[in-house]
Amino acid sequence: MNVFEAIYTLRAIRRFRPDPVPPELIWRVLEAATMAPSGGNRQLWRFIVVQDRPLKEQIAQFYREGWDRLYGPIREQALADPNMAPIYRSAEHLAHHLAEVPVLILACLQTSPWPVSTSPPGSYIYPAVQNLLLAARALGLGTVLTTLYRVHEEEVRQLLGIPEGWETMALIPLGWPAQPFGPLRRIPVEEVTYWDRWGQKRKR
Amino acid sequence: MNVFEAIYTLRAIRRFRPDPVPPELIWRVLEAATMAPSGGNRQLWRFIVVQDRPLKEQIAQFYREGWDRLYGPIREQALADPNMAPIYRSAEHLAHHLAEVPVLILACLQTSPWPVSTSPPGSYIYPAVQNLLLAARALGLGTVLTTLYRVHEEEVRQLLGIPEGWETMALIPLGWPAQPFGPLRRIPVEEVTYWDRWGQKRKR
Repeated sequence: MNVFEAIYTLRAIRRFRPDPVPPELIWRVLEAATMAPSGGNRQLWRFIVVQDRPLKEQIAQFYREGWDRLYGPIREQALADPNMAPIYRSAEHLAHHLAEVPVLILACLQTSPWPVSTSPPGSYIYPAVQNLLLAARALGLGTVLTTLYRVHEEEVRQLLGIPEGWETMALIPLGWPAQPFGPLRRIPVEEVTYWDRWGQKRKR
Repeated sequence: MNVFEAIYTLRAIRRFRPDPVPPELIWRVLEAATMAPSGGNRQLWRFIVVQDRPLKEQIAQFYREGWDRLYGPIREQALADPNMAPIYRSAEHLAHHLAEVPVLILACLQTSPWPVSTSPPGSYIYPAVQNLLLAARALGLGTVLTTLYRVHEEEVRQLLGIPEGWETMALIPLGWPAQPFGPLRRIPVEEVTYWDRWGQKRKR
């Protein structure tokens, strides 16, 4: 698949079919992740592929608590807004069914000791995560970049035996999509691009 | 270009030809950036395209000071190591010639007020940056994700009129490459992938 096609149709997938994901496809999206740049090419990343059902259920419970805490309070308001309602329902569905997603991938970053660097920690891991999402899209697999489980980040680290000095930066559910890819809703590029100085716009 | 080809040949380019980059190609890499996911689809990003030579020279000076401070002290050691020397020379070249790169793009993120979120700030901007790098690669344009100018982040914000509440998260030089793309040097994926628990490896 063409790069631009993948980028322009990479929609968050939050409803998955139960069919398993062949191991070779998991390897392919992970290897694509590891091709990403990182400060000083340090590659301070590890990826944990969770397929064990009891482990997934534990993580799903942490995730559900994150969802309830952050998005529970705005439920009525979101469902009353025709623009918000479909996205809210889809995200709520994922929060209630995370354990059923065939594969959960945790992207971990070594944050201590942190190298002498001007780079924010995220710059060391989210390019790899984006590679993973794009590679999955190209293979017809759905993903979504989530962090709601992080309300219990410490507990997730204990659950999976992640040592001190490492942090989980994202959870990526992976599976065959049960909803269409795309279209994306984005602010037009002309609105978010400035030329030489803040606020100075141009027409395309 | 195929997604995997772009991902597997996206090498940091630090030597550029002086030829200008057509505006339409700048728009294309920026629009690809804006297709990235961001928490709650909030799109808290702005991109500043710097082409004005005096502005580029100021930024280059900040960048050079970051280079000297972080990498100056290891110069002799790096040049004595046959693995490190070529990368060091290439990065040093960029630090000395940044103002000559045709286009500098600053990726800005609104970090205050920060939304109620479990996501680290970087998750809101580096997926967009990675899209930009991959789109550029597909168009034959070179880029590198850099942050060394951030030793003077406050001054860069003043220089370009970036308001309070916004932070520059990355500087992306963009131009026609004067060095080949790829190959990449990465740790094998089997070494950085664990299955169900930290440290539990599998053969591919």
